Amino acid sequence: MAVYTEVADEDLAAFVARYGIGRLLSYKGIAEGVENSNFLVHTEAGHFILTLYEKRVNPADLPFFIGLMQHLAEKGINCPQPLEAEDGSMLGTLAGRPAAMVTFLDGMWVRRPRLEHCAALGQALAELHLAGRDFGMTRKNALDVSGWRPLYAGCEAEADTVVPGLSTELAQELTFLEANWPKGLPGGVIHADLFPDNVFFLGTELSGLIDFYFACTDALAYDVVICINAWCFEADGAFNVTKARALLNAYRKVRPFTEAEFAALPVLARGAALRFLLTRLYDWLRVPPGALVTPKDPTEYLKKLRFHRSATSARDYGLDG
Amino acid sequence: MAVYTEVADEDLAAFVARYGIGRLLSYKGIAEGVENSNFLVHTEAGHFILTLYEKRVNPADLPFFIGLMQHLAEKGINCPQPLEAEDGSMLGTLAGRPAAMVTFLDGMWVRRPRLEHCAALGQALAELHLAGRDFGMTRKNALDVSGWRPLYAGCEAEADTVVPGLSTELAQELTFLEANWPKGLPGGVIHADLFPDNVFFLGTELSGLIDFYFACTDALAYDVVICINAWCFEADGAFNVTKARALLNAYRKVRPFTEAEFAALPVLARGAALRFLLTRLYDWLRVPPGALVTPKDPTEYLKKLRFHRSATSARDYGLDG
Repeated sequence: MAVYTEVADEDLAAFVARYGIGRLLSYKGIAEGVENSNFLVHTEAGHFILTLYEKRVNPADLPFFIGLMQHLAEKGINCPQPLEAEDGSMLGTLAGRPAAMVTFLDGMWVRRPRLEHCAALGQALAELHLAGRDFGMTRKNALDVSGWRPLYAGCEAEADTVVPGLSTELAQELTFLEANWPKGLPGGVIHADLFPDNVFFLGTELSGLIDFYFACTDALAYDVVICINAWCFEADGAFNVTKARALLNAYRKVRPFTEAEFAALPVLARGAALRFLLTRLYDWLRVPPGALVTPKDPTEYLKKLRFHRSATSARDYGLDG
Repeated sequence: MAVYTEVADEDLAAFVARYGIGRLLSYKGIAEGVENSNFLVHTEAGHFILTLYEKRVNPADLPFFIGLMQHLAEKGINCPQPLEAEDGSMLGTLAGRPAAMVTFLDGMWVRRPRLEHCAALGQALAELHLAGRDFGMTRKNALDVSGWRPLYAGCEAEADTVVPGLSTELAQELTFLEANWPKGLPGGVIHADLFPDNVFFLGTELSGLIDFYFACTDALAYDVVICINAWCFEADGAFNVTKARALLNAYRKVRPFTEAEFAALPVLARGAALRFLLTRLYDWLRVPPGALVTPKDPTEYLKKLRFHRSATSARDYGLDG
């Protein structure tokens, strides 16, 4: 839950007036998101989301994120569409922060995803990848394989306090992935963080994809395995191959996998598991005493990583060639 | 900011279905309120506020609060109106908590109230008092003069760590107020917490009164001086007699003061200042280490208390008889 910045009524009224969306009628800080401050804004023209970008977002990245949402929305993807102010700009300043207004999307994120949600997600992800093909900007993935060793270095000394032997296990995994990371796979814009809380549904109909603030340019299939990890394991840690098959088959109906992608799925999945394991571990080891926010459990991703190490081909994810 | 309880999409959909307000389309936790968890809920019938009552609210008081809002809304007061479920109940259970749905009110609370806001507040407060006259339930004010000594007892030993000499000053004030507290003033339902963040405006038009969870049965004029304290002092601590005059004159146009109320204003104002000084001091002395929420400064109300001790009659609040 997060509203890091207070916004005065008069300041917001002046900010909203730049968008030609009528008079400001109400606004409420939203207890969602951990990086930025978000407000639900009601004006005479409808409901919108206002985001103030806090210090964990690099302002130099904002044109990529905002431009991407606009591009995808124009291509028909159900994602927040940034509003243009009367001077044509989509980024402004409010309460001393970079700020943007985007359209409001109905729908709820699904706490217990079912098979049909996984299938809908697979289709939407492939559509997102296709829609991103002619987006003109690029952004390096700061958390790709080259970014994992520095993260590991920040956890190495204390990792065994979380799980005995973890430091060695991570070092071996990292060395393997650095040596075997697939190169030359089809690339493009990826969301890179499409966890259930970033996907809205109305019933089983997917109504919105949100939170593009990890989006970057990388292998498209890497985005797919991030979703496999986030959507296809049960609460007890068991891999649900039926959900993975539904997700992957729905995806490849829209964008078929190349042979190289098909072969790379297990190693990509290991990498995606290591990436979230490392960031969670890093945060876990740095929780300030008395913090109200409980960090996410890193061992959830250790279990996923171990599963993927046991996989030998795409068949282990429910695909049959 | 506050969402203490997570609500699952399926559970809320089932809860909303009881109200005949169409399908659930979205919900967001609101970063407002410090006692309860609040969600902005969108259904096919419009926007609503869902409140889950957390442990600081006594469930036995809920029928009073909910019944009062319904009564006032039916009398035309701009306040949240509780929705009746199909079985006629206005209170349900969600995520293990008592829960209610109320109508959504547009408007913003005013960070820097001006003269016209104070006048609109005075009128609305008098209308609230008149509308409450035939409300059939009563609730003792747990923070009336009889409740201050126990609060003081919990602060006495440490009060001087906040302001040297504070413990003695509070003891003397308390003894004075217990001996001189006015009795027999016109009573009824009071809001008891009508601070600026509980009053919504659209421009200078008052569009809503919210947060009735301190409402109780007490002297009506006591509610007025709570507002004088909350609305008519400037950020530098100076009393703004022009704002007080505007508030009081707008109030008495709707409900004239009796002579006894008129005479009692200074002592009532002292009591209202002491009540908020004591609760703020109590919270201030109990901030857990590392808490993210900054408690409100108790010395703000010490300055107000000292001002009221210097007042000798209603004339000091801008009234001329």
